[in-house]
Amino acid sequence: MTASEGTILVVFGATGDLTHRKLIPAVADLHRTGLLKGPLRIVGYARQDLDDESFRALLKQTVEGEGTNAVIADTCYVQGDFREKAGYERLAKRLSELEKEGGSAGRLYYLAAPPSFYTDIFQGIGAAGLAKEGEGFRRIIVEKPFGRDLETAESLNTELHQVFQESQVFRIDHYLGKETVQNILVLRFANGIFEPLWNRNYIDHVQITVAESLGVEHRARYYEEAGALRDMLQNHLLQLMTLIAMEPPVAFEADAVRNEKVKVLRAIHLPAPEDVPRLTVRGQYGRGEIDQQQVPGYRQEPDVAANSNRETFAALKLQVENWRWAGVPFYLRTGKRLAQRTSEISVQFQRAPQRMFAREARLKPNVLRLRIQPDEGITLSVGAKVPGMKIELRDVEMEFDYDAFGHPGTDAYERLLHDALIGDSTLFTRKDEVESAWRVVDAIERGWQQEETAPEIYPAGSWGPESADELLHHDGRRWHLR
Amino acid sequence: MTASEGTILVVFGATGDLTHRKLIPAVADLHRTGLLKGPLRIVGYARQDLDDESFRALLKQTVEGEGTNAVIADTCYVQGDFREKAGYERLAKRLSELEKEGGSAGRLYYLAAPPSFYTDIFQGIGAAGLAKEGEGFRRIIVEKPFGRDLETAESLNTELHQVFQESQVFRIDHYLGKETVQNILVLRFANGIFEPLWNRNYIDHVQITVAESLGVEHRARYYEEAGALRDMLQNHLLQLMTLIAMEPPVAFEADAVRNEKVKVLRAIHLPAPEDVPRLTVRGQYGRGEIDQQQVPGYRQEPDVAANSNRETFAALKLQVENWRWAGVPFYLRTGKRLAQRTSEISVQFQRAPQRMFAREARLKPNVLRLRIQPDEGITLSVGAKVPGMKIELRDVEMEFDYDAFGHPGTDAYERLLHDALIGDSTLFTRKDEVESAWRVVDAIERGWQQEETAPEIYPAGSWGPESADELLHHDGRRWHLR
Repeated sequence: MTASEGTILVVFGATGDLTHRKLIPAVADLHRTGLLKGPLRIVGYARQDLDDESFRALLKQTVEGEGTNAVIADTCYVQGDFREKAGYERLAKRLSELEKEGGSAGRLYYLAAPPSFYTDIFQGIGAAGLAKEGEGFRRIIVEKPFGRDLETAESLNTELHQVFQESQVFRIDHYLGKETVQNILVLRFANGIFEPLWNRNYIDHVQITVAESLGVEHRARYYEEAGALRDMLQNHLLQLMTLIAMEPPVAFEADAVRNEKVKVLRAIHLPAPEDVPRLTVRGQYGRGEIDQQQVPGYRQEPDVAANSNRETFAALKLQVENWRWAGVPFYLRTGKRLAQRTSEISVQFQRAPQRMFAREARLKPNVLRLRIQPDEGITLSVGAKVPGMKIELRDVEMEFDYDAFGHPGTDAYERLLHDALIGDSTLFTRKDEVESAWRVVDAIERGWQQEETAPEIYPAGSWGPESADELLHHDGRRWHLR
Repeated sequence: MTASEGTILVVFGATGDLTHRKLIPAVADLHRTGLLKGPLRIVGYARQDLDDESFRALLKQTVEGEGTNAVIADTCYVQGDFREKAGYERLAKRLSELEKEGGSAGRLYYLAAPPSFYTDIFQGIGAAGLAKEGEGFRRIIVEKPFGRDLETAESLNTELHQVFQESQVFRIDHYLGKETVQNILVLRFANGIFEPLWNRNYIDHVQITVAESLGVEHRARYYEEAGALRDMLQNHLLQLMTLIAMEPPVAFEADAVRNEKVKVLRAIHLPAPEDVPRLTVRGQYGRGEIDQQQVPGYRQEPDVAANSNRETFAALKLQVENWRWAGVPFYLRTGKRLAQRTSEISVQFQRAPQRMFAREARLKPNVLRLRIQPDEGITLSVGAKVPGMKIELRDVEMEFDYDAFGHPGTDAYERLLHDALIGDSTLFTRKDEVESAWRVVDAIERGWQQEETAPEIYPAGSWGPESADELLHHDGRRWHLR
């Protein structure tokens, strides 16, 4: 499949910042790198009263980057409310006109609108006959959050499937567009040496950390409803976990890969509510210091309730109940206002079963660390002998940095947009996948509610609540990133 | 055990270059680093007509290094022929006098004499009662070559055991004193991740290269009798092979380690003479260029017969017939006047059993390379995804360099001298070990003789005869170092 046909990218919520921050630069880059063979035209749809000219003028003010002027010059705008039938009809008319001019085209609908409008947009698209595939494809990219629990996600999927087939749906998780995420699969399955070790016989545990140093920023209204568990863990961290834990797929193809990911999510043990406090940590950032700057606590942020119990940090201990992973804990941790912005997966192997050398106990076990951001790279810690007369052992790091390739990575949105254009849904989340992830998150949320777990305040700029350290200490382990 | 007692190091063949090049600096270093608790005195024994003063004067001319003056000032000399009873009696008398002055001492006899005198020296030591352990230990270090085939080695061992117990004997192979050699054991057995992969299920083959860029130098008389197989392969390369192939010893102790090494040597398949040409390569260097300098061929070297068929290069394909290694070839290669001075072991793992990614076939399999000299280090090659839109795979190297420790390694002789002083024979070759190694070499020599294999001439500065490449090409493999 190639993106050789003409395509129209319809952006619902086109005046939001996704269009100018991500989509226009991504389209410009795809043109520049020759990955778009045919023409691609952006049609914006939003409530704001604009026409083509004023929309282009608006974009010009904010978009930067090579080749973006040409993309903007070709952009159209259709004014419409997400709930107004007439708007979708205007859109349909405009799309027909464009196709009359430029020939039939595939259509990619991009939902950049607030989630509360998702159902309206699905229905609007459906009612205006915009989802029916004729000469060109009709696909839809849906931004997260996809629901706020299993029930809402299921209902959203039901609405979506009234209008689109699952094969037309591309649920986006920009983490899956990142280089290292795909590199996990290459590392695991294009090398002969990792897979034999990649199981409960040799792996002690896995840690996944996605740490942000920013606070809630301008997203407090959404965040007060969501929290770290729904905002980050349900999608990004569980996705990373599935890539680490999945069986080798029969092929590197969308459904083959996603079948294996779903199997992991389904194998995650759902803790009973009374076990949740023991297996999880909820945290909320207080005042603190980041980069030598005093920053407010979460409850002091604009639009946050002064007594908010919304978590900005979550740590979980999960178990995957299958033959490969039984007994191997997966520790997941994410939070805002942590000591640094960094994402990393570390796979800690078991110690050698025999202590052959004096003072070997001081060695750490082997750890394979996959840094995702910043500075993507792979590090393997190995015990080696310090040169000299005595058998003194020390941990050393064997390292590879993706910078060494001298190639810039592809922007996550650019890759995902490209993949949706060519109809490759490998890096998008399937219906059963998103629902299985919510099932895990719901079990935690249920426990937090039933046990009335209040978040533990941690100072901004720290590595989160002390309980998150204790979660591992209790098992005789510790976070590698700290 | 510590080297806290007073010790006398008796060097047989003290006027040879080993004394001033290696032993005096090693003793000075051991003093300097505090690894010798008690006094250590060197007594030289040789035919040359010298006394203490003139021997010291001789040493002063040639020895360099910190602290060596103090060592030299303490050195004594006993003149004697290796075959003359009176000489050993003079030595015995002098040693008694020294012990009367300085207290009882352990005695370490160091055979730095030509191998043709070994038996005479054993007998001389025995007859003068110098091997009997009383208040101090009596140990003997024997330099290589230890025999020139199984028969001569066995006979040498018989002579040796007339005088010394095996526990008193330290057969030296300076390769075993090198840092990386010991690091192989640490790497394999202090890490949890290598041992599970370290067998026929995951390893495709092993390569061991010990390449010299020097020619035969001043050793032609010896070398005309020995050749590369006896001079290098029987000891250094087979030793490296045993360290790679051995089972985990029950402890890091001399006999536990050497038991496992012997098991490997005994498991090496001894090829029938008619199979030897197919499994081995003999080479001899011709004229060529090294470092932009024209160098003569082996037959043009002083003291080499103009029609000499002595090999200066040998390559073997060996099989270890046990549960761990059956079917995994070990390719060993050593030679003089090769392209560079370098020693390396590389362990090539099997490819991933499933080709999941397009163009994955271009990837090399994973290879763990252990560089021994120069620049000791470990490299693991891994297939990774090149950043960018396509799934393009490339081999990258994860690397660790022992220089990073900032510690200088210990000189091999210093370590081995120290170990002999404290009675630790882990890094010395045991009777059955040296004999098992000769058994392998003898099988090859027998094949070469029976099949009248003439060495293939290779240009100095190359990587040896073309047949050595073909040895691997035939199996669909190639030398990593080339």
